[in-house]
Amino acid sequence: MTILVTGGAGFIANTLVESILSRGDSVICLDNLSRGTVSNVARFTRKNSFRFSTVDLADLDAFRSCLDSHVDLGPISEVWHLAANSDIPAGIADPGVDLRDTFMTTFNVLRVMEERKIGELLFASSSAIYGDLGEKELTESTGPLFPISNYGAMKLASEAMITAAAEKFLDRALLFRFPNVVGLPATHGVILDFIRRLRSDPDHLDVLGDGSQRKSYLHVTELVEAMLFIQGRAAKKVDVFNIGPSDAGIHVRDIARETVAAVAPGARLKFGTDNKGWVGDVPCFAYSTAKLSELGWTPKLSSLEAVRRAIREINGQENPP
Amino acid sequence: MTILVTGGAGFIANTLVESILSRGDSVICLDNLSRGTVSNVARFTRKNSFRFSTVDLADLDAFRSCLDSHVDLGPISEVWHLAANSDIPAGIADPGVDLRDTFMTTFNVLRVMEERKIGELLFASSSAIYGDLGEKELTESTGPLFPISNYGAMKLASEAMITAAAEKFLDRALLFRFPNVVGLPATHGVILDFIRRLRSDPDHLDVLGDGSQRKSYLHVTELVEAMLFIQGRAAKKVDVFNIGPSDAGIHVRDIARETVAAVAPGARLKFGTDNKGWVGDVPCFAYSTAKLSELGWTPKLSSLEAVRRAIREINGQENPP
Repeated sequence: MTILVTGGAGFIANTLVESILSRGDSVICLDNLSRGTVSNVARFTRKNSFRFSTVDLADLDAFRSCLDSHVDLGPISEVWHLAANSDIPAGIADPGVDLRDTFMTTFNVLRVMEERKIGELLFASSSAIYGDLGEKELTESTGPLFPISNYGAMKLASEAMITAAAEKFLDRALLFRFPNVVGLPATHGVILDFIRRLRSDPDHLDVLGDGSQRKSYLHVTELVEAMLFIQGRAAKKVDVFNIGPSDAGIHVRDIARETVAAVAPGARLKFGTDNKGWVGDVPCFAYSTAKLSELGWTPKLSSLEAVRRAIREINGQENPP
Repeated sequence: MTILVTGGAGFIANTLVESILSRGDSVICLDNLSRGTVSNVARFTRKNSFRFSTVDLADLDAFRSCLDSHVDLGPISEVWHLAANSDIPAGIADPGVDLRDTFMTTFNVLRVMEERKIGELLFASSSAIYGDLGEKELTESTGPLFPISNYGAMKLASEAMITAAAEKFLDRALLFRFPNVVGLPATHGVILDFIRRLRSDPDHLDVLGDGSQRKSYLHVTELVEAMLFIQGRAAKKVDVFNIGPSDAGIHVRDIARETVAAVAPGARLKFGTDNKGWVGDVPCFAYSTAKLSELGWTPKLSSLEAVRRAIREINGQENPP
């Protein structure tokens, strides 16, 4: 089988593509390199079953031409649509960012799937679609959905376009709602940010917000394992799964303390006064993964363990031997 | 106050604008005339407090220039965003229709509101955002939201963009989820379709689907009354209300029988075999309006009474004296 992975040079794809190749399928990775890097896929490029192209999926004609250039790999049977803007503050400052990189990429993926009769879509959605519902437990059927960032809005918009497309032409669509995901290769996120700031100034670390924000963290290796598990088990034509750790998450202040302890012991921590790190930041949420547990998958790592492992890994990435 | 109404030459605006003008506010109506007609606003054009411009809101520069041409009316304090594609099958055949007329109009309305510091947005959302949940009662917090048409998808996408905008800059956003709305001036919908077909062939009427589709109908005069009531009463910065009749709706076969009785008595009815009229048609839904009742508003007409009144009105529209 030939599998298309969008955002194929990005963070999640780095782990996912390795799993797909190892099950014996061919992979076409597409990426606009706005955030992903070719180095993320360098280890695959010698394989005959792997292709990479730089293309902006928001440009439909370029997207079509790019796929035409890979027709010798045979028809594509499924699409993992991971391409999206992942910088939430950037999308709040300029709504055009999430419009182009998150919304229009989904719109065009669906156009191409209809034109080429590609039946199966796996979509990287997000807990950000829930918005800020406080301590309310977030199950897949929680509503109303009032996202508070353009990132969350365009992920929800993408889910909606996908379910409409499933009514018309898709054979199957699975929506994976991601928590905060950590691991290698880190391109953004709170851990990378803390490590970079501590490496440039080992004496102190300023934390945006009062540190009380509490979030669920999953390691990228477990995220990919969960998605492939769901793909193998889910029975419905259209379904949605929260993916996350079994615990209620950890506080930003604990991430800061863990990072300081690992990277620059003795650095002073300074917190802000707001309970949000930035406009669009969801201060805390209780993420239910009961549906995924019932399907038969639970993560091995807690939020704290996933964060600790990621701190070690990302510190190594930022300080190569 | 100066109020902006998008889709201002359309079906709902026809009734809404009259109410807004009668409370003493000025109104700027914008419409691309893809479905609305200038005749819908002709009775207002002699008023100094009324302006109409033809403009495509999907074209941001044209939208801005158009607003600039009306600055002499003073700053706009609220926007009623009614502009949207209303032809669900057209948007299923070509996803570009809902992208442009429903999604991009909302995206640009929000851009303009941020640029011009307009604080209040009233949005015409739809029961179509719920998708096909069968007999499950649809409250405002029902999920998951899996719309089955691009129309529903782009309405949900619009809701999501609006809640994200409320986090950043809007003072207030109210989302009104409409049921099927009937009345004058009819531009589309099942009643107009039946009447036109019976007038061209009074001997028989072919009904798409088996007639078992059951839907809630509200008369446009009651819809506008409800929206203005909610605007006056709702206390939260962001809120959503189902608006609809108190009953569980009526079947398409009953609409067909009522129309035949009123327009062409004796015409033979012929039904299809499918329980959907078309791809993206939601066969039945149970629409909860408990939240609106608790706020203090209930409609006077049942679904059947609203449909009967609309049949009389639309038959008159199609057969002017």
